[in-house]
Amino acid sequence: MAKGIGQHEVGEQVDLYFLIKSSTRGIASNGKPFLTVILQDKTGDIEAKLWDVSPEDEETYAAEKIVKVAGEVMNYRGRNQLKVRNIRPAQPQDGVRVSDFLEVAPLSREEMVEYITQSIFEMKNSNIQRLTRHLLNKYQSEFLEYPAATKNHHEFVSGLAYHVVSMLKLAKTFADLYPSLNRDLLYSGVILHDLGKVFELSGPVSTTYTVEGNLLGHISIMVNEIGKTAEELGIEGEEVMLLQHMVLSHHGKEEWGSPKKPLIKEAEMLHLIDNVDAKMNMLDRALDKTKPGEFTERIFALDNRSFYKPTVE
Amino acid sequence: MAKGIGQHEVGEQVDLYFLIKSSTRGIASNGKPFLTVILQDKTGDIEAKLWDVSPEDEETYAAEKIVKVAGEVMNYRGRNQLKVRNIRPAQPQDGVRVSDFLEVAPLSREEMVEYITQSIFEMKNSNIQRLTRHLLNKYQSEFLEYPAATKNHHEFVSGLAYHVVSMLKLAKTFADLYPSLNRDLLYSGVILHDLGKVFELSGPVSTTYTVEGNLLGHISIMVNEIGKTAEELGIEGEEVMLLQHMVLSHHGKEEWGSPKKPLIKEAEMLHLIDNVDAKMNMLDRALDKTKPGEFTERIFALDNRSFYKPTVE
Amino acid sequence: MAKGIGQHEVGEQVDLYFLIKSSTRGIASNGKPFLTVILQDKTGDIEAKLWDVSPEDEETYAAEKIVKVAGEVMNYRGRNQLKVRNIRPAQPQDGVRVSDFLEVAPLSREEMVEYITQSIFEMKNSNIQRLTRHLLNKYQSEFLEYPAATKNHHEFVSGLAYHVVSMLKLAKTFADLYPSLNRDLLYSGVILHDLGKVFELSGPVSTTYTVEGNLLGHISIMVNEIGKTAEELGIEGEEVMLLQHMVLSHHGKEEWGSPKKPLIKEAEMLHLIDNVDAKMNMLDRALDKTKPGEFTERIFALDNRSFYKPTVE
Amino acid sequence: MAKGIGQHEVGEQVDLYFLIKSSTRGIASNGKPFLTVILQDKTGDIEAKLWDVSPEDEETYAAEKIVKVAGEVMNYRGRNQLKVRNIRPAQPQDGVRVSDFLEVAPLSREEMVEYITQSIFEMKNSNIQRLTRHLLNKYQSEFLEYPAATKNHHEFVSGLAYHVVSMLKLAKTFADLYPSLNRDLLYSGVILHDLGKVFELSGPVSTTYTVEGNLLGHISIMVNEIGKTAEELGIEGEEVMLLQHMVLSHHGKEEWGSPKKPLIKEAEMLHLIDNVDAKMNMLDRALDKTKPGEFTERIFALDNRSFYKPTVE
Amino acid sequence: MAKGIGQHEVGEQVDLYFLIKSSTRGIASNGKPFLTVILQDKTGDIEAKLWDVSPEDEETYAAEKIVKVAGEVMNYRGRNQLKVRNIRPAQPQDGVRVSDFLEVAPLSREEMVEYITQSIFEMKNSNIQRLTRHLLNKYQSEFLEYPAATKNHHEFVSGLAYHVVSMLKLAKTFADLYPSLNRDLLYSGVILHDLGKVFELSGPVSTTYTVEGNLLGHISIMVNEIGKTAEELGIEGEEVMLLQHMVLSHHGKEEWGSPKKPLIKEAEMLHLIDNVDAKMNMLDRALDKTKPGEFTERIFALDNRSFYKPTVE
Amino acid sequence: MAKGIGQHEVGEQVDLYFLIKSSTRGIASNGKPFLTVILQDKTGDIEAKLWDVSPEDEETYAAEKIVKVAGEVMNYRGRNQLKVRNIRPAQPQDGVRVSDFLEVAPLSREEMVEYITQSIFEMKNSNIQRLTRHLLNKYQSEFLEYPAATKNHHEFVSGLAYHVVSMLKLAKTFADLYPSLNRDLLYSGVILHDLGKVFELSGPVSTTYTVEGNLLGHISIMVNEIGKTAEELGIEGEEVMLLQHMVLSHHGKEEWGSPKKPLIKEAEMLHLIDNVDAKMNMLDRALDKTKPGEFTERIFALDNRSFYKPTVE
Repeated sequence: MAKGIGQHEVGEQVDLYFLIKSSTRGIASNGKPFLTVILQDKTGDIEAKLWDVSPEDEETYAAEKIVKVAGEVMNYRGRNQLKVRNIRPAQPQDGVRVSDFLEVAPLSREEMVEYITQSIFEMKNSNIQRLTRHLLNKYQSEFLEYPAATKNHHEFVSGLAYHVVSMLKLAKTFADLYPSLNRDLLYSGVILHDLGKVFELSGPVSTTYTVEGNLLGHISIMVNEIGKTAEELGIEGEEVMLLQHMVLSHHGKEEWGSPKKPLIKEAEMLHLIDNVDAKMNMLDRALDKTKPGEFTERIFALDNRSFYKPTVE
Repeated sequence: MAKGIGQHEVGEQVDLYFLIKSSTRGIASNGKPFLTVILQDKTGDIEAKLWDVSPEDEETYAAEKIVKVAGEVMNYRGRNQLKVRNIRPAQPQDGVRVSDFLEVAPLSREEMVEYITQSIFEMKNSNIQRLTRHLLNKYQSEFLEYPAATKNHHEFVSGLAYHVVSMLKLAKTFADLYPSLNRDLLYSGVILHDLGKVFELSGPVSTTYTVEGNLLGHISIMVNEIGKTAEELGIEGEEVMLLQHMVLSHHGKEEWGSPKKPLIKEAEMLHLIDNVDAKMNMLDRALDKTKPGEFTERIFALDNRSFYKPTVE
Repeated sequence: MAKGIGQHEVGEQVDLYFLIKSSTRGIASNGKPFLTVILQDKTGDIEAKLWDVSPEDEETYAAEKIVKVAGEVMNYRGRNQLKVRNIRPAQPQDGVRVSDFLEVAPLSREEMVEYITQSIFEMKNSNIQRLTRHLLNKYQSEFLEYPAATKNHHEFVSGLAYHVVSMLKLAKTFADLYPSLNRDLLYSGVILHDLGKVFELSGPVSTTYTVEGNLLGHISIMVNEIGKTAEELGIEGEEVMLLQHMVLSHHGKEEWGSPKKPLIKEAEMLHLIDNVDAKMNMLDRALDKTKPGEFTERIFALDNRSFYKPTVE
Repeated sequence: MAKGIGQHEVGEQVDLYFLIKSSTRGIASNGKPFLTVILQDKTGDIEAKLWDVSPEDEETYAAEKIVKVAGEVMNYRGRNQLKVRNIRPAQPQDGVRVSDFLEVAPLSREEMVEYITQSIFEMKNSNIQRLTRHLLNKYQSEFLEYPAATKNHHEFVSGLAYHVVSMLKLAKTFADLYPSLNRDLLYSGVILHDLGKVFELSGPVSTTYTVEGNLLGHISIMVNEIGKTAEELGIEGEEVMLLQHMVLSHHGKEEWGSPKKPLIKEAEMLHLIDNVDAKMNMLDRALDKTKPGEFTERIFALDNRSFYKPTVE
Repeated sequence: MAKGIGQHEVGEQVDLYFLIKSSTRGIASNGKPFLTVILQDKTGDIEAKLWDVSPEDEETYAAEKIVKVAGEVMNYRGRNQLKVRNIRPAQPQDGVRVSDFLEVAPLSREEMVEYITQSIFEMKNSNIQRLTRHLLNKYQSEFLEYPAATKNHHEFVSGLAYHVVSMLKLAKTFADLYPSLNRDLLYSGVILHDLGKVFELSGPVSTTYTVEGNLLGHISIMVNEIGKTAEELGIEGEEVMLLQHMVLSHHGKEEWGSPKKPLIKEAEMLHLIDNVDAKMNMLDRALDKTKPGEFTERIFALDNRSFYKPTVE
Repeated sequence: MAKGIGQHEVGEQVDLYFLIKSSTRGIASNGKPFLTVILQDKTGDIEAKLWDVSPEDEETYAAEKIVKVAGEVMNYRGRNQLKVRNIRPAQPQDGVRVSDFLEVAPLSREEMVEYITQSIFEMKNSNIQRLTRHLLNKYQSEFLEYPAATKNHHEFVSGLAYHVVSMLKLAKTFADLYPSLNRDLLYSGVILHDLGKVFELSGPVSTTYTVEGNLLGHISIMVNEIGKTAEELGIEGEEVMLLQHMVLSHHGKEEWGSPKKPLIKEAEMLHLIDNVDAKMNMLDRALDKTKPGEFTERIFALDNRSFYKPTVE
């Protein structure tokens, strides 16, 4: 496979197709309009400036368009920037599609669906099993397509499902090591905890927050969905409240957006698993861009730390 | 009316009926069991010790029983204590009932219902009006009976309804002073914001938290109720989300149990009104027990402050 | 009335008089000096760049000058900017004055004076009444002219007096609802609480902090004024200390600049009223610039929140 | 096996051998000395009072003595207390030893040594392997005997080794799931992270902090040990610094006693694993004492939460 | 000199005169009243219980009375307690006075006055000099008698003056080492910073807070005094504001009761000196009671730390 | 001596030699590369832009090169900037050396060595004396050359030694005033506390953090050095642990990077002295650049305060 933008270093020449992730108009100090565009492919993204743009240019180089760009990778204030020598919109005959430029989860949808389905199949408590299966089926297509966040971790196509699958693997291990954990509650909590993101986020491309996401949040939305679904299915045991509590408390603390702290062991474990998987994902993404013996850029969501990549194998 | 326990000072003789609020068994340093009982009437409560009790005594002087007690008010480590000279269970012929000993709101249920009903009647937005009326009707009997909290403020019979009525009066004033406020949203938010307490709390006497209250909390419970009720009534506009947001955010901050901060003006105002009314209620209760020129006892929910009661009229 | 700058949208042509609020010299990337000016009229303000300026231009287009500008409203990095096509200093024959460009309180000085005077007239405690009247009379002209702050809320001509009038209205309502409040103390606290701002701030135009304001602050300055005035008037009761305490504690907490937390009920209420009125003022100003269905810009003084403007009437 | 003290409920008669965990002299309100003793066996502990004690009694019933006690389990202020009917020191012919009363890890020392040895054997980096093996051998006897803490979690004989074995199992799983983790660093970090506790704590019985533990702490002590050992063994690569960093940062944050936050991925993972294992251990111990449908006592080290034990299987 | 209570260890017999520092009535578990008295002499204090007291006893053994007590030092819950064998009120012929039992500063009033007067004499700025001298003269008798606090540090007769003298010595040293410091401002700040305590505290014996102390605090009171005194003396330069600022900011932070942080160098230095002297005083008092090789009791005002007393000379 | 850059004001012409402190490449809005260079001499530093640079220019004007520059001091966004009219690299015949441009401590190395040596000579405890002398000798050359920090305070050549000498002077004074302080411990703590910076920092010019500095920090490094040195010298008393504790705790709190808070009096004093000397150094540097009657720029390390420089002598 040809090198993508993520594999080019400062000083190298580039001649590649890109998806425009965002495009913002500015006015240069000479009074003329210019565009700041973020160009992305599957391997990463880079900023570029288009100077002296016409109103037509602004339409041609808008977000979600595909373009072919030749230029050179420069370093500007510590961040890479693409100095554009030539740019043109992609043509039908170029044979490129939006999906060619989007990062996707490293597992196929089929693999993920199968893994999750199997986990539900293993459940012994039929109330938990029915609730989980029903909710997953209801939102399955969005669930398989949405990212898990707008930034920080799992912010790629199918990131939500991939995050759930990774967490399920952790959940199985923890349930083996700590046999007092209720496996059904834990699996169900993992599967449902972020499902409200299909309401909270706008979708898999150029992801933003919806109004409902801002005002209610994925946690409250999902707690409501569980309540309504239980009523529809005529399920009434303590399980409904326990699952609602797990979703409610999975951020771990009030100041992190959970109106209740975890108060059952499986809720505490759900929070810990969510935390571990998000952190490892963030760290891997930052360290992939770093050479041994050097430090990553600061990672805001990890206390703004800059991590060291050892030279030792 | 005869003086209640709240009006007796240290050194005075007492001969009164009381409701036992709680009764806890201990073992004295001589190895014999004793009971620590909290005796209450409408004017306040006081601790007393019953020494050398038999197993029968423990049953006779259990919580929620009515007793007649003669004794003297003492001061022990800065708090009043009743030194019991004589105690006996109340008899049918004494003609006293549990309700004689419970503090109640200073307005009658009828007055409160009428005031709230009128406020709903004044609403112009029919979605908000229908939702509010439906939910209030559904839980009206508990709403009129429950306290607003287990302690700190409005912890008396009908405290919840009385808190809502006081807040509605404030809401009307604020809506007059700040005409940009949406009156319907604000009134509805006031009426519904604590209605989930009828699930969260155990009832009007010896109030504790239910399991559901501990695990989900009145905020999440009420947000669900609004969602389900809107669905039942076929209401679909933005109003549903706005009311859910108001209930969700009325504690003002994540660390105070609201998963979202207020993000509409009426939600901010609801939080402020709730805060003011709770604080004034706490302050009045503490200052009522304090003489001019002295300080109240420390009030935990007000940053543990001890307030001064001026001598100036 | 003709449209002001606050009513123009991106893309529209503008031909208006402005007051220059501030003017800062910079050096463009071509090495030539330019000016960044903030242009204001009663409806708002906007940034503009003047390129390649001469030393004379720097004097002509300095702060507090009036200019006539033709140009187009652009958007630069999410904020509006005026692209200047033509600019010239205003001439005497243009007939425009500085006061034409300053936002003022929505009530006239006469109305405000009358309302406050009436509140003082209603006081029953003559010590409080005399102290309040004396201090208000002493600083009346500045009081009626100053803003209540340099930014965030009531930052307009007569903002201080307008803030006091709004708060007095709230105080009256609260005193009606909570009859245990001492009305005289509360009214006097409202009138005096921010009067020290006439020392702390530089004046009504291009408001900044004075050295005294930075080193002592309006709270300590006013507490001293009350003490000195009481001595001059021969007033000696507890009222002096209570009023000093109210001014001292009106920010509510040590970390907000009050060396003592409120320790009398009226002080707590003063803090609450101040808080409500400031927040409502901030919110109204931000929401006025926002369309229904959208979010305001982030408001730093409100926990950096971005508020939603509902589409529901 | 006969029921231990942990399995007796309030009201039951008890006739058991105990180890005295601590014994404190007091003066009763009648002026006579008494002892408060904590009696423990493998299943838990309970407080008891010995009234009117002689100086000889104080010696007979001192900490670390074994006694035979008959009495009844009572509840005093919400905690269980043993009302002593009869007490006598154990005699040689009773055939009981201190070790009969100490809780021990659920794995034998041999099993734990074997598991850890195998993990060291699997290491590929010989510097890490030699350092780890050398340090473990040097302190092996204390390592196998000490608890992991004085309270909160793994506070039993061999708790330190058992904590390490549990964490190694988690480490293997995480290394499988996140293949970018350096397995050798992670295993070594797990084995060494708390080894400094053999200096910090006084030993396996009646564990307290040593002066060195108070003034330097197990983290700094162990970082020194790694440095000195590397010098002795002539090891000089980056591995030494990385292992020192992992030990240094395993508390995760400065305010939790780590002078550096984790700055390599394996250090972050070490902190997370340590956290999970400690929490699960605490939770299991608290929930074991709680009935389904009820809440545990408050757990200080878990934000003072009280956890719910579900009724659902 | 005979050994005082501070020099007796647990188990020793005591036969000493004491001043009763406080006396509180309680009711024993046998229903009879008893007194908890704190007995003090110059070397320390100790708690004792007087059982079965009559109303006359309560008067005889009230606060500020002198008594002769024989008994034994016991340890109760980790704190020393005096087990009273015999107690009687002091008689005129015993020849003991209240001042015999009060701890006093280690310097005489004359020495302290001389040192401070000399420091004022050295000042070069006549405004600062006159203000400082005038205020000190005005409150000199209280200044020489009051403690610096009710507890924690310098809580003895003349503690306020002694604290000022110690700080002046530090100020001189710092002014020598950092010549950019304005010596006059610094000396004056040291002398005046706590002078408001003569209003805030009730006096040198059984010190409590006055109402004015609670509502205004020594900082605001002193800032007012400086302002009024400057007016009386006709002093108008920047010095007045600078001295007010130094007093205002000497607690260093808003949350510690200073409405402004230090904003001139001398104010920052004043805060640092105050801090150092208070801490050293607290530490010396705690370490005096501790044996080498042991830890002090926890010191609340020093982050609740328990300090180690080294065995090394 | 000729005026340095620190003594030039806005608008003045400059013709001076400079050391380039750093040089960063950017791309101007016309697409051409430019350099942002920081030019320093002993009196301060200033930013300048070099437009349209060639690849050769980038090498000529790199960090650590010496240049001659003519130009004018401008003000850009509130900070000074040098508008370059002419620039050329220094030639051998110019006779300028790197050391001519570096700020150095105000005392010579010989004076500092002598002062410190004398302090060690005065010690009475031979263990402390030998340890201190040995460690200082071992790292003397770096100790005399390194700065004490990369920024904020003592960030100049020999800053580390100068900071130690200043602190020793304070230590002597405090030991005189508070005779209970152990002088040997305190002196040794002062001399050793920051010696680990010779590992943590890269050196005296263009100082950055080493990898070891980032991962272990100067505190842990030095604690190890003390341990190893004591072993080499065969020193075994409590002194070793006490000195390690003093170094360990000298940042005062866990959140400031000390894994233990100070737990001996000398450690508390070391922290206070370190704090005072760093703050005075920061303040003097900021106030030197400020005119009387004005405020300094904000000082981040002093709570972001802006200090006032009085007009009073």
